[in-house]
Amino acid sequence: MITTHPFDDDKLREECGIFGIYGHPEAAAHTVLGLHALQHRGQEAAGVVSYNGSQFNAHRSLGLVGDNLTSEEVISALIGDSAIGHNRYSTTGDTIMRNIQPLFAELSGGGFAIAHNGNLTNAMTLRKMLVQKGSIFQSTSDTEVIIHLVATSPYPRLVDRLVDALTQIEGAYSLVILTQKKLIGVRDPHGIRPLVLGETADGEPLLASESCAFDIIGGKLIRDIEPGEIVIINEDGIESVKPFGPVQKRPCIFEHVYFARPDSLTDGTSIYEVRKRIGAELARESSVDADLVIPVPDSGTPAAIGYGRESGLPFELGIIRNHYVGRTFIEPTDNIRHFGVRLKHNANTPQIQGKRVVLVDDSIVRGTTSIKIIEMIRQAGASEVHMRIASPPTTHSCFYGVDTPEREKLLASKMTVEEMAKNINADSLAFISLDGLYRALGLEGRTNSAPEYCDACFSGDYPISLTDHDGGQNNQLSLLAERK
Amino acid sequence: MITTHPFDDDKLREECGIFGIYGHPEAAAHTVLGLHALQHRGQEAAGVVSYNGSQFNAHRSLGLVGDNLTSEEVISALIGDSAIGHNRYSTTGDTIMRNIQPLFAELSGGGFAIAHNGNLTNAMTLRKMLVQKGSIFQSTSDTEVIIHLVATSPYPRLVDRLVDALTQIEGAYSLVILTQKKLIGVRDPHGIRPLVLGETADGEPLLASESCAFDIIGGKLIRDIEPGEIVIINEDGIESVKPFGPVQKRPCIFEHVYFARPDSLTDGTSIYEVRKRIGAELARESSVDADLVIPVPDSGTPAAIGYGRESGLPFELGIIRNHYVGRTFIEPTDNIRHFGVRLKHNANTPQIQGKRVVLVDDSIVRGTTSIKIIEMIRQAGASEVHMRIASPPTTHSCFYGVDTPEREKLLASKMTVEEMAKNINADSLAFISLDGLYRALGLEGRTNSAPEYCDACFSGDYPISLTDHDGGQNNQLSLLAERK
Amino acid sequence: MITTHPFDDDKLREECGIFGIYGHPEAAAHTVLGLHALQHRGQEAAGVVSYNGSQFNAHRSLGLVGDNLTSEEVISALIGDSAIGHNRYSTTGDTIMRNIQPLFAELSGGGFAIAHNGNLTNAMTLRKMLVQKGSIFQSTSDTEVIIHLVATSPYPRLVDRLVDALTQIEGAYSLVILTQKKLIGVRDPHGIRPLVLGETADGEPLLASESCAFDIIGGKLIRDIEPGEIVIINEDGIESVKPFGPVQKRPCIFEHVYFARPDSLTDGTSIYEVRKRIGAELARESSVDADLVIPVPDSGTPAAIGYGRESGLPFELGIIRNHYVGRTFIEPTDNIRHFGVRLKHNANTPQIQGKRVVLVDDSIVRGTTSIKIIEMIRQAGASEVHMRIASPPTTHSCFYGVDTPEREKLLASKMTVEEMAKNINADSLAFISLDGLYRALGLEGRTNSAPEYCDACFSGDYPISLTDHDGGQNNQLSLLAERK
Amino acid sequence: MITTHPFDDDKLREECGIFGIYGHPEAAAHTVLGLHALQHRGQEAAGVVSYNGSQFNAHRSLGLVGDNLTSEEVISALIGDSAIGHNRYSTTGDTIMRNIQPLFAELSGGGFAIAHNGNLTNAMTLRKMLVQKGSIFQSTSDTEVIIHLVATSPYPRLVDRLVDALTQIEGAYSLVILTQKKLIGVRDPHGIRPLVLGETADGEPLLASESCAFDIIGGKLIRDIEPGEIVIINEDGIESVKPFGPVQKRPCIFEHVYFARPDSLTDGTSIYEVRKRIGAELARESSVDADLVIPVPDSGTPAAIGYGRESGLPFELGIIRNHYVGRTFIEPTDNIRHFGVRLKHNANTPQIQGKRVVLVDDSIVRGTTSIKIIEMIRQAGASEVHMRIASPPTTHSCFYGVDTPEREKLLASKMTVEEMAKNINADSLAFISLDGLYRALGLEGRTNSAPEYCDACFSGDYPISLTDHDGGQNNQLSLLAERK
Repeated sequence: MITTHPFDDDKLREECGIFGIYGHPEAAAHTVLGLHALQHRGQEAAGVVSYNGSQFNAHRSLGLVGDNLTSEEVISALIGDSAIGHNRYSTTGDTIMRNIQPLFAELSGGGFAIAHNGNLTNAMTLRKMLVQKGSIFQSTSDTEVIIHLVATSPYPRLVDRLVDALTQIEGAYSLVILTQKKLIGVRDPHGIRPLVLGETADGEPLLASESCAFDIIGGKLIRDIEPGEIVIINEDGIESVKPFGPVQKRPCIFEHVYFARPDSLTDGTSIYEVRKRIGAELARESSVDADLVIPVPDSGTPAAIGYGRESGLPFELGIIRNHYVGRTFIEPTDNIRHFGVRLKHNANTPQIQGKRVVLVDDSIVRGTTSIKIIEMIRQAGASEVHMRIASPPTTHSCFYGVDTPEREKLLASKMTVEEMAKNINADSLAFISLDGLYRALGLEGRTNSAPEYCDACFSGDYPISLTDHDGGQNNQLSLLAERK
Repeated sequence: MITTHPFDDDKLREECGIFGIYGHPEAAAHTVLGLHALQHRGQEAAGVVSYNGSQFNAHRSLGLVGDNLTSEEVISALIGDSAIGHNRYSTTGDTIMRNIQPLFAELSGGGFAIAHNGNLTNAMTLRKMLVQKGSIFQSTSDTEVIIHLVATSPYPRLVDRLVDALTQIEGAYSLVILTQKKLIGVRDPHGIRPLVLGETADGEPLLASESCAFDIIGGKLIRDIEPGEIVIINEDGIESVKPFGPVQKRPCIFEHVYFARPDSLTDGTSIYEVRKRIGAELARESSVDADLVIPVPDSGTPAAIGYGRESGLPFELGIIRNHYVGRTFIEPTDNIRHFGVRLKHNANTPQIQGKRVVLVDDSIVRGTTSIKIIEMIRQAGASEVHMRIASPPTTHSCFYGVDTPEREKLLASKMTVEEMAKNINADSLAFISLDGLYRALGLEGRTNSAPEYCDACFSGDYPISLTDHDGGQNNQLSLLAERK
Repeated sequence: MITTHPFDDDKLREECGIFGIYGHPEAAAHTVLGLHALQHRGQEAAGVVSYNGSQFNAHRSLGLVGDNLTSEEVISALIGDSAIGHNRYSTTGDTIMRNIQPLFAELSGGGFAIAHNGNLTNAMTLRKMLVQKGSIFQSTSDTEVIIHLVATSPYPRLVDRLVDALTQIEGAYSLVILTQKKLIGVRDPHGIRPLVLGETADGEPLLASESCAFDIIGGKLIRDIEPGEIVIINEDGIESVKPFGPVQKRPCIFEHVYFARPDSLTDGTSIYEVRKRIGAELARESSVDADLVIPVPDSGTPAAIGYGRESGLPFELGIIRNHYVGRTFIEPTDNIRHFGVRLKHNANTPQIQGKRVVLVDDSIVRGTTSIKIIEMIRQAGASEVHMRIASPPTTHSCFYGVDTPEREKLLASKMTVEEMAKNINADSLAFISLDGLYRALGLEGRTNSAPEYCDACFSGDYPISLTDHDGGQNNQLSLLAERK
Repeated sequence: MITTHPFDDDKLREECGIFGIYGHPEAAAHTVLGLHALQHRGQEAAGVVSYNGSQFNAHRSLGLVGDNLTSEEVISALIGDSAIGHNRYSTTGDTIMRNIQPLFAELSGGGFAIAHNGNLTNAMTLRKMLVQKGSIFQSTSDTEVIIHLVATSPYPRLVDRLVDALTQIEGAYSLVILTQKKLIGVRDPHGIRPLVLGETADGEPLLASESCAFDIIGGKLIRDIEPGEIVIINEDGIESVKPFGPVQKRPCIFEHVYFARPDSLTDGTSIYEVRKRIGAELARESSVDADLVIPVPDSGTPAAIGYGRESGLPFELGIIRNHYVGRTFIEPTDNIRHFGVRLKHNANTPQIQGKRVVLVDDSIVRGTTSIKIIEMIRQAGASEVHMRIASPPTTHSCFYGVDTPEREKLLASKMTVEEMAKNINADSLAFISLDGLYRALGLEGRTNSAPEYCDACFSGDYPISLTDHDGGQNNQLSLLAERK
C-alpha cells in the first residue's frame, strides 16, 4: 500500500496554521476561510472555537477544512463575534481527537481557548511537576501545559497569569488565545514561528500565521507580530506588551524556502520573489551546461523560474502533476518502477527526450523522492540530469515545531554532496550555500556571531535549549511527539 | 454556499475516461491506476468490472478513484485477469448509482460489460422502440441502449450482434467492452472521442482514453485506435475490424485545447507542445505592449509559456493556486469580493503591482470566472490587463459527450469580442483564430470543405445528425442528459 | 463470534411481509407503519414505492423499518397517494441491494412496481427462456421473472398481461402491485401465503400480509383475499377477478403455529386463541406430572398459558428474556456454557430450583437451541424437564417462501421422538399430533384425501410441483435462494 | 415525530449499570457481556476501561453495548486482565462524548478509572471550590469531582486519598474503580444504589449492579456489597473497609418495583417473586369484579400473574408488544389515535371484546401512557377497565440517580387517586399501599421512624441532604443533570 499526500512524503512539514478574529459578526465563517488559506501548514485536523458573549462553541475534526468545517450546520453552530482556529497534523484515532486544537478549558476566571504553532522543549518536565500537584491532563499535547500553568498561577489577572505561564515555558510558540473579553496573540522571544497582524475590510483585527489568510477574506496585512510580543485585543483596541527582555530575533529560515505560501509576505518581503532570487543565486553559484531547466512541481517552480532566467536556459514543465490524490493505492506485485511518485507525477517525455536537464527542487530530506524522480526523468530519455537544490544540505532535526525525520535519516547528515549525487544518480548535484541563502534574503551573508534566522536544520546551531531531549527521556518523548 | 471544483465551474468538461486491460493477473489494480491517471476526464463517479474466467465482479462508487477504489478490500474482490473501468460525472442520489459505468448485463451468450465515453444522439428514439418490444431498462443512461440492442439482436455470434447494434446508433462513442472471452475497443466512425491502444511492460494489451494512463503503470503507447475501428482482443491476439464504410475522420479539437492531459500524446503529437504552439501563434496574432505574461493556472500555463517565449515577455506565476479544495463554503454575508475564485486562487500581488499584464487562459465559456480573475488582478494593482485566449470563441453547444451550457449561456454566442472585452473588463481581449488553431496542430489551416477535426463548438459545423434533439422532445432530453 | 437475532436462529423464518394502500394523501407514512407492524415477517431489508400521479418514487434499504424508513427526509420524498411496501431477508452487499423489493420497471404501458411474499418453483426455467429472447435481468430475484413475463406479454391491457404472466408461474405467491392507475393484490391459487383486505378509518383500501398492519394505522380488517383471487383497486372501486380454475385451498399451517403475530386474525380466527388451544390440546395429548409450566419466550407463551390452564399447573416466567440484542458477541475462549442462548435468555433460578418443569416451545428445527435451553434450566436446579412442542415434528423443507434448513439438518427428519428427547436431554418430549393441530384449528382432524392446509413441512405432502428442484439443478438454486 | 424507546417514555429510568472484573485473561469480553446483561439500566452510551499491567485502554460509544462494543476489533484492543464498564443515558453530541464513563485520569500515583451509578448532591459546590484552586474539568459529570478530589488529596496512599474524597461527597453512589494494582467497589453509606460481589466459574472476583450480570458469564453471586463498604481487590485477595460510621441502610425500593431485572436477586430475594407478591397484595387490597387480568407488557407481567393467581381471574396477554422499535416515526396528519403507543403495543382484540379487564402496570409517572393504553383497550371493546398499580403513587422527584420528571409533572403530585382515575379514564384505579409494598418485601410494614428503604419518590422522605438543590442554583443544575 502506497500512501499519497498532497505534499510530498519526503519533505519537511510545517506543523500548524493558526488564525484569530475579533469583533466580527461572522467570526467563524472568516476563521474557516483563513484556515483554508493556511491548509498547506497542516492537513490532518482542524478546529475552531468561537465566543458569543456568553458561551464558547467548538468544532474540531480530522481531515481538511474544506471537507469538514464548511457546512452551514457547522458554521451556524459556531456563533459569536470572536473566534480562533487551528490546522494541524494528527494521527487517527479516538484519543487523539482530544489533541485537536484549539484546546479549551473552563478556568476560575472563565473560559480559555488556545491554538499553538510550534513546540515546547521543556513540556515534559513541566507536565510532571503539574501532575504531582494534582493537575489532570486531557491530552498528550504540550500545549495543555500552558493551560494548566495559567489555571494554577497565583495571580488574579488573566494577562498576568499568562505571562507567569510563558516565563516558565521554553521552545517555539506562536499562540492565539480567546477568552471572554480578549483575543490575544503571542510570539515567542526568538520569533521562531511566524504570526502576523491584519484587519478586515471594515477594520476588525485579525491574527494569522501568514498573510495569505487575510487575502482570502478581503482583509489586509498590517505588520508582523514582533518576537517576544504579546498583542491583547479587546473592545478598547489593541495593546502590545513585551514582558521578556531583549533577545536576538531568529525566525525560521525554512519558512522562506518551503513552508510559506509564495503569495504570503514576511517582514515585507514576497516569498515568491525570495524563491526566484534563491534560484538565481543557485544559477550563479552552480551553473552547468544544459538544454532546459525544469522544476519538481509545485514547490520548486519559483526557484526554477529564477534559475532559468539567470542562466538563460528555457523553463519547461518537464514533470506533469496529477492534482487528484487518494489515500492509498495498492502497488501491483510486478513492481511498477517508482510507483509512488507516478501517482502524482509523470514525465513530460517529448520535452525531455535526448535533453540535458537541470532539475530544481527546494530541499533533500531523506532523498527517497529525488531517486525516483531522477529515475523517471532518465527513463523518459534525458541525456543528463543535474540536480539543483534551493536550500543548503539539511543535516539536523528541528525541535521547534517542524516534522523532521530523526537525524540519522537525513541524507545530508551522513553523506557528502558527492556521495549524495551518486546516491540519487544525478550527473551533478549542488545546494545553495548558507551565505547564498542569506543573500537571497537581502543580507550580505550569515552573521555567524549572531545569525539573523534560525537555521538549525542546516547549521545545527539551536537557539533554544532542548530541556526534555537533553535528559534522554526517550520513552516520554513520544508523548510530546504530538504535533501542533 | 459556494461550491468549488478541482476544475473550474466555468469550463467545458470532458465527461468520461475509459480503460481496459486483458490477460494480466492484476487487472483490477492496473485499471484503478489507469482511471486515476484519467481522473481529469470525470471526477464524480468511477467503476471497474473484472472477469476471472467464471464470474464478473464489479465495484462502482461516487467520488474520486483515489478515495473509493484503491482499498485492498475493493481490489481483492475484483478478481480476474481482464478488466475495464470508467470515470464519469454524475449527480448524487440512489437511482443514479445505477448509471455508474461500466454497465453490466447477463445476456444469453454470457456476461457483457461496457464503458462508454461520448454521447448517442438517437438514444431516446431507440429506447422507445426497445421498451415497446418488452425490454426493461435499469438506468437512464444512453449506453444501456447499446446493451439491449446487443441482447435482442438476432445474430448468434457476439461480434455480429455488436456490429448489428452499432449500425443502429448515432453519435460519438469510444467504448471498451468486456465479455467472457474478449476485451473489445470501439471508436465511432468519425473518431470524435479518443481511444488508444497500448501494452504493459510484459506485453499485455491495454486500451485507454489517453496515453497518460499507460505511463502510470509502466506501459507504453502503441497507436491510436482508428475512427470506425473495432479492436477485438482475446487469447489469440488482437484483431481489427472496420465494419463501417469510409467516413471523414473528425476527432474533437477541444481535447488538444483543454481536455487531454499535457503529458498525453494524440496521433503522435505532444499535447503540451501543441499548447505552447497555440500560445506562440496567439502571440503572433495578437501581440500587445506589456510587462509580463501570467497564466490562469493550471490549464493556461503551457500556452502562457509559449506566449512568453514568442513575445519576449517574462513568464510569472501571477496567480497562486490553493490545491486544497472543499465541497462548499459559506460566503460571509458582507460579500467578500469574488469570494468563489479566492477559494482556489490568490493574486501574487508583488509581481503584479503597477504592471501591464497579459493573462492567458484556455477558453471563455460563460465568462463568469474571467470577470472575477481580472477584477482580482486589478485589485492587486495591475495597471493594464490584456486577456489572451488559447481557443476560438466558444459559440455552440456540444452534443457529443462534453458538458456545455445551453447555447444562450455561452458568452461568445451573444457578444462580439469587443463586447466580451468590455463585459469582463479587460483592456484588450483576443482569441486565437480557427485557422491559427489548425496551424498550431500542424496543418496549414482549416480545410473548410472537409475539416480535419470536429470543431462544432467553435464553428457550429456538426458532423453527426442530432436525431433526438431535432425532434424537439425537450422533456425527454433530460433523460439523456446523464453524462458518460 | 456469536450472532444474535431478535428471533431465534433455530426457528423457521417467514420471509416476507407486504403492504399496499390506495388513494390516501399520506400513503407512504401509512405503508411504513404497516411494514413496522409486519417486521416479524422479515428484518433484513425493507422498501416502499409510491406513485403521485406522474412519477414513481422508491426507497429501499437494508435493516429495520424503524431504523431506515421513518425519517422525515425519506417519507417526504415518497410523495403520492398510493404506495406498496415490502419487508424481507437479504444478505448484505452491493448487488443484493438490487433485490430489495418492491421491484420496479418502466414497461411500455407505464411504471410497474411489485412486492412478493412467497417463492416461485419454476422461476429458473422461465428465466432461462426469457434471457434467450433478449430480456436483461437486474436482480437474482424470482420476482423479476413476473415483471419480464408482463413486459413481453403480447396482450395490450395490463390486467391481461398480468394474468398471462401468472398462468406461466408456479409456486407460492401473495403479491401487491402498483401501476399508474391501480393497486392490485394477488394470492396464488392454493392461497399458501396470507393476504388480507382492509380499509383505513376513512375507507381507503388497504392490503397486507396480516391484519395487525391495519391496527397500527387505525384501520380495520374486511376479509381475507381468497386463494386464486386478483383484487384490482382503482378510482372506481374494488374489482375481484378469479382467472384460475377451482383449486383446493391450502394455506400455510405454520402461520398459525409461529409466523403470524398473535394479535392477527386469519379467516376470522384469533392466532392467539388458536395457540392457546394448541397448548390445551397438547396438555390433553401428553400430560405429565409436574410442578409448573414455563414458556420458551416469547413465541411459546400462548401455548404455555393454554397448557397451564388445561393441566392445572401454574404458569411462570421461568426464562427471562433480554430484549436488547446486538449484532455479534465474541465468546470468551473459556467457553461459557451455552453462551449464545444466554445473550437473550436467563433462567429465573428461584422459580425453577428443585421443580419439575414443563417447558413449552412452538417447534424444534435443528434442535440446537432446545439443547441449550434445557441445559440452562437444569443448571438452574430443575429436577425434571418435560418438553412439549406446539407443532408436529418438522420433517421436511419448505419451498414456498419459508427459510428452512436442508432436510438433513432437521432433527425430526433423522430421529424418532425418543431419540430426540435423548438428544436434547429432556426427561420427556412430546409434539402435538397432526390431527391435534387440525383440531386446534377447529376441524375434526386432517382430511388426508384433501387436506385443508399446506402442512408439507410436517407431512411431506407438497401441493405444488417443484419444477426447478426436480431437475436437480443444484448450482442454480442458489440464484433462487434469494428470499422474498 | 414520535420517538420510541425500548422502555417506555412514561417510566422512571434507572440511570446506570456498572461492572468490574479482576485477574481474568479475557476481562474486556466478560465486561462487555456483563454490560449487555445490565443494558436495561442505561441504553444510551457504554464504555469499558481495561488495564494490562502497563497501560490503560478505553472504548466508549453512544448506543447499545450489542451494537458498539462487541466487535473483535473493539474487544481485542481492550487488552488486560482487569476491566470496569458502565452503561448510561446521554444526550448526543460531541462534548457529551467526554461524559461517557468510565472516566479516566492519569494521577501522580498512576492511572485511575471510575464508573459511577448514582448522583452526588453537592457536586456543584465541590466543583466550584476545585476550579478555584486550578483544577480543569473535562466533563460536565459529577463523577469527575471525585477524580479531582482524589488527585488533589494530600495523602500519599491511593486508598487514603479515595476515602478523603468520599468523606467530602454527598449523595448516592455505587462505584467501581480500576487502578494499576486494584479493582475497588464502593457503595455509599445508605446503600441507595445496588452493588453485588460475585466470582467467575474459576473464582476471579466480579462486581456488578445486579446479579444477572454474573449469570450471563457463568459466574455466581457471593453477596451484596454492604452500604458504606469499600471492597479492595488486588492480587492478594479481597479486603473490606468501612470508613464511615454506622448509618441506617436505605436501599432504593424502586429497584424492586421496576428497575432491576426479574431474574436478579437482591439481599437474597428474587425480584420476580417480590413482584408476584406485590400483585397478590394488590389483589387483596383492591379486589374488583372482573373477567380477566392483563399486564402492561413487559414490566407489569409478574405482578399481573400474582394478581391473577390471588384473585382467581384468568391471566391473558391482552396487549401484544412489537419488539421491533425504531428511532422516530412520522405521525400521519390525520392523527391516528394514540399513535405513539401503537408503535409498540397492540390490543389483542378477541380476548378483550366485551370483557371486564383488570390492567396491571408497575407505576404511573406522568400518566400519558396510561391514558393511551386504556383508550386502546376500550377501543378493542372492553366493557370495563380497572387499573391496578404495583407501587404507591409517585409524588416526589428522585435526586439519587433516577431520571424523574420535575415534581409538577408527576400526576400523583397534583391529583387524588379519584382524580387520576378520571384523568386516565379508568373505571377504577388503585395503587398498592406503602405498607403493602413493604409487606411484599417481607417486612410487617414500613417502620416510619427508621424506614428500611429509600422511598422518597413515594414518601418525600429524603435520607440525604440536597446541598446543590437547596441553594436554588437552578441554572447550574443543568450541569449536574448529566446522568450516570
